[in-house]
Amino acid sequence: MSLTPSAHFPVSERLRQTRAIMQREGIDALLVPSADPHLSEYLPEHWQARQWLSGFHGSVGTLIVTADFAGLWADSRYWEQAQVELAGSGIELVKLMAGQPGPLDWLGLHMPAGATVAVDGAVMAVAAARQLREKLQHTGASLRTDIDLFAEVWLDRPALPEQAVYAHLPPHAARERAEKLKALRDQIRSQGAQWHLLATLDDIAWLFDLRGSDVPYNPVFVAFALIGEGTATLFTALSRVDPTLRDSLSDEGVDVRDYTEIGAALAAIPAGEKLLIDPARVTVGIIENLTTGVSLIEALNPTTLSKSRKTAKEAEHIRHAMEQDGAALCEFFAWLEAAWAGERITELTIDEQLTAARARRPNFVSLSFSTIAAFNANGAMPHYRATEKAHAVIEGNGLLLIDSGGQYLGGTTDITRMVPVGTPTADQKADCTRVLKGMIALSRATFPKGILSPLLDAIARAPIWADQVDYGHGTGHGVGYFMNVHEGPQVIAYQAPATPQTAMLPGMITSIEPGTYRPGRWGVRIENLVLTREAGQGDFGQFLNFETLTLCPIDTRCIDIPQLSTVERQWLNDYHAEVARRVAPLLANAPLEWLRERTQPI
Amino acid sequence: MSLTPSAHFPVSERLRQTRAIMQREGIDALLVPSADPHLSEYLPEHWQARQWLSGFHGSVGTLIVTADFAGLWADSRYWEQAQVELAGSGIELVKLMAGQPGPLDWLGLHMPAGATVAVDGAVMAVAAARQLREKLQHTGASLRTDIDLFAEVWLDRPALPEQAVYAHLPPHAARERAEKLKALRDQIRSQGAQWHLLATLDDIAWLFDLRGSDVPYNPVFVAFALIGEGTATLFTALSRVDPTLRDSLSDEGVDVRDYTEIGAALAAIPAGEKLLIDPARVTVGIIENLTTGVSLIEALNPTTLSKSRKTAKEAEHIRHAMEQDGAALCEFFAWLEAAWAGERITELTIDEQLTAARARRPNFVSLSFSTIAAFNANGAMPHYRATEKAHAVIEGNGLLLIDSGGQYLGGTTDITRMVPVGTPTADQKADCTRVLKGMIALSRATFPKGILSPLLDAIARAPIWADQVDYGHGTGHGVGYFMNVHEGPQVIAYQAPATPQTAMLPGMITSIEPGTYRPGRWGVRIENLVLTREAGQGDFGQFLNFETLTLCPIDTRCIDIPQLSTVERQWLNDYHAEVARRVAPLLANAPLEWLRERTQPI
Repeated sequence: MSLTPSAHFPVSERLRQTRAIMQREGIDALLVPSADPHLSEYLPEHWQARQWLSGFHGSVGTLIVTADFAGLWADSRYWEQAQVELAGSGIELVKLMAGQPGPLDWLGLHMPAGATVAVDGAVMAVAAARQLREKLQHTGASLRTDIDLFAEVWLDRPALPEQAVYAHLPPHAARERAEKLKALRDQIRSQGAQWHLLATLDDIAWLFDLRGSDVPYNPVFVAFALIGEGTATLFTALSRVDPTLRDSLSDEGVDVRDYTEIGAALAAIPAGEKLLIDPARVTVGIIENLTTGVSLIEALNPTTLSKSRKTAKEAEHIRHAMEQDGAALCEFFAWLEAAWAGERITELTIDEQLTAARARRPNFVSLSFSTIAAFNANGAMPHYRATEKAHAVIEGNGLLLIDSGGQYLGGTTDITRMVPVGTPTADQKADCTRVLKGMIALSRATFPKGILSPLLDAIARAPIWADQVDYGHGTGHGVGYFMNVHEGPQVIAYQAPATPQTAMLPGMITSIEPGTYRPGRWGVRIENLVLTREAGQGDFGQFLNFETLTLCPIDTRCIDIPQLSTVERQWLNDYHAEVARRVAPLLANAPLEWLRERTQPI
Repeated sequence: MSLTPSAHFPVSERLRQTRAIMQREGIDALLVPSADPHLSEYLPEHWQARQWLSGFHGSVGTLIVTADFAGLWADSRYWEQAQVELAGSGIELVKLMAGQPGPLDWLGLHMPAGATVAVDGAVMAVAAARQLREKLQHTGASLRTDIDLFAEVWLDRPALPEQAVYAHLPPHAARERAEKLKALRDQIRSQGAQWHLLATLDDIAWLFDLRGSDVPYNPVFVAFALIGEGTATLFTALSRVDPTLRDSLSDEGVDVRDYTEIGAALAAIPAGEKLLIDPARVTVGIIENLTTGVSLIEALNPTTLSKSRKTAKEAEHIRHAMEQDGAALCEFFAWLEAAWAGERITELTIDEQLTAARARRPNFVSLSFSTIAAFNANGAMPHYRATEKAHAVIEGNGLLLIDSGGQYLGGTTDITRMVPVGTPTADQKADCTRVLKGMIALSRATFPKGILSPLLDAIARAPIWADQVDYGHGTGHGVGYFMNVHEGPQVIAYQAPATPQTAMLPGMITSIEPGTYRPGRWGVRIENLVLTREAGQGDFGQFLNFETLTLCPIDTRCIDIPQLSTVERQWLNDYHAEVARRVAPLLANAPLEWLRERTQPI
């Protein structure tokens, strides 16, 4: 595979060739982010230039190359991996830490007056480029975004994805395409714009009820969309959309043009008109196609908010998907408990068996992210992934953390459960109990409609903070509808800025997943998905609360039950009764017995 | 009193004369905010121009006068009063509501191209003037800040305050002036500035350990301060600082110059040097004295953060002040319960008796704000103040809300308690119980050091939101040390922007005062002051929690005790035990008996 450095074309040689072009072009520093023209979480191989040039395979990291320095900035999740993969490459690992200069800061500090920094504008957000330009201005350095140096050195660069694009069909596609387009046009108009460019793949897939499989886990496809007052154009490789689908799109006023034509379409917007973009979700490279005289209006993509608010019909499909997902989990857990008495079970076996159990369920499409099955110390790494080379055998005593999810035609799931192995220690149970208290506290919460979601985080954390424990990740992220498992605009995290766009509104699906991580020892996380719904309207305005969507027992053998309050115990019993009621009809034999056993009242 | 419109000089005539000058000067709109050159909460009469011109006596409101329109913007607290006071004046009441255009927006919407808006720059913050200029730019109107129209029409304008300035002395003044100045100079330097202008009166009083009585409740005095690398100058009327005090200031490197000389001192800063200001706490008028070539560095006043973090010695004095304040309250409550059987008690009597009880305590200086004694429906107005003309008699059944506080040499107090009158209803008790739960939840909380204080609010509100109840004010404001009862930078309010400067840090004193308001029926608020302290440092960083400072029983006859959880009941019993332990030694006879009775465990 061309992405992996080889003996005859090692990183050192890749860097040498790149530096030669930098010198020829008068470029003092090259910035290579982990990004693509759609600023996606998962990148098609075509855009894994950072990986190609550095040999570092982690999904997030930023490379800077100058004539006499090469550094890769990576966060703590990747330090171990980066140290191994960068060894001997001449690239230095720069540990990304709060309060330390990041790669953009580094450029601002090290580039002298007159220096030129280059980045492929096609993969850098308008907002990020602005930020970098500001930092460079202080020293008098400049930013160039109009050159892709890789064109000359990365000769076997993988092609763009070519998998078919398909329609997300009724009944699971539960909103009319025409209705969504009309609403979007109203929103574009109310922002004072005539045009709107979408580069984010989940917004595009949602708007047109289309799905793809260009990257693992996220059912999206590489495309742009340009919406005008009377036009809607989807830009993607024509070969990927079969004639029938193209006709049906055309019938609804959606034209399909080749992916490469987006630049020309933007260039054709007449001067004096206004284009709505989200500066954090559109790259400078694409915007540079506009003629002068077209002005930008900047705001959150309207579809991001619309997409986040699931309809009643979508919620109904999601409830069914959750029942199936819960049934798959019960089958898996029943197998696990029976198996580990006799078999050698590893973290990899768990992934295989759980994936297989989900795959047997109707309307299953794929996993929604890479399964995390992490035993004891591995559980202390929130983004751990077991590999053939490094994985644990489940044996002895302790805690097994399983964080997994599926894409179904009728919804996306994401669940974390703790499994007791042998006899967990009192400290392990104390951690599980505290985390469960946090999850219950937020699951039960009522709050004013439109509250900024970061402001809710303290409700989940208060019982955990009480023992001076905390966790570095957010408590909750938005979840799509047969769509990306991470979506905005809401985010329940005290670390996140409480901007107006994070308002919590009915129909949103969010995870509640507090945790505790003890490096080298164990990790705990318990996660359900919840649907925000109207709780009532009275003297004090409109209030919201959560319906728990996820349906799978929470293993009480990890819990120090006397530590639960009456209210917490009642919540857990009610939850288990609901899980049993809705999942039992989908099960038989051992899995059904397992469900009955694990949903007994405490 | 010149502030009040009179028959021979009514508002209509004041407006007519003002408009004549506006016409002569080519001014299309005059903006008159409720503000002074120090952007204080309480304005000396000299700066109550808005009140003089409109006849509206409310403490907050903004007047706009054009040739054919005059409007006063006021928030809901003042609508009733404004309607009465503006009747017949030709000034329209514009109700200030969330989502509706405020006075600055109104100017942006109504001023045509070429129009001139005037405001006295001496009373408008740099940040506010910038905001207004931006709004006017859209239409091509302009802002003039160099004219004070009142000079010609308000001929009997009250003089500037002339009360003596005095030293806040050890032991109560518990930090060295020199040490505070040194720390401030370090902070100025670290911001890259050579100079720092302070216009906020509490920052100035704190920095120099001086106090005054220019306005009620806030022990501050009208002044500016300019700090240089080797100089510190206090600008206030020379007659107010006696020679001994002036000498002692001089010995510590602090010069006193006349209030009117600040402009010349700013004008003397050499070009090329940098002046640190807080753009929200300094007016455009004062800044216009700078010569071009002096640049501004903008940040929160460093003293605002330093002042908010009380030292261990200050905390010790505050604890003593709280004991005395609690004893005064016990004496008052004991009197109240004995008196209302026989006497006619009104909201005004309560204010008198409570003030007298505080005044008997050592080191008492004044009230820290105007007492709110509000019976039943009056309690539903969070800023209610009983007057000779309108006040309630305490009789029948219901709830009496008393929110009061004192300035002592060793600290500032602010406390709200609910008093049952006759037999409160079940609904009234339910409101009190819910509010108490909220207060206890936040009082017990532990949280990470440096968390942005608005993010803590959900902890207090969760038990209140649970019943779909909420309140419009913040849960907590900062409190000074023998200083303003409202100070920043922290604020526990989900409605407040969670900016970095709101970080919660050890030593801060904050109120916890959830409430519930039922218009026309009753209002509930329970308030303690708490001191933020270190809770511990462990695997998950540094944590903080609160020490409750306020020492006064919470009347459990308003509380539906079975609704309290075990933990809440324990908190209340522990609190009452502490109140009894510390306040009893300061009491005798009936007040002591009252304390014993009201601190019985439940």
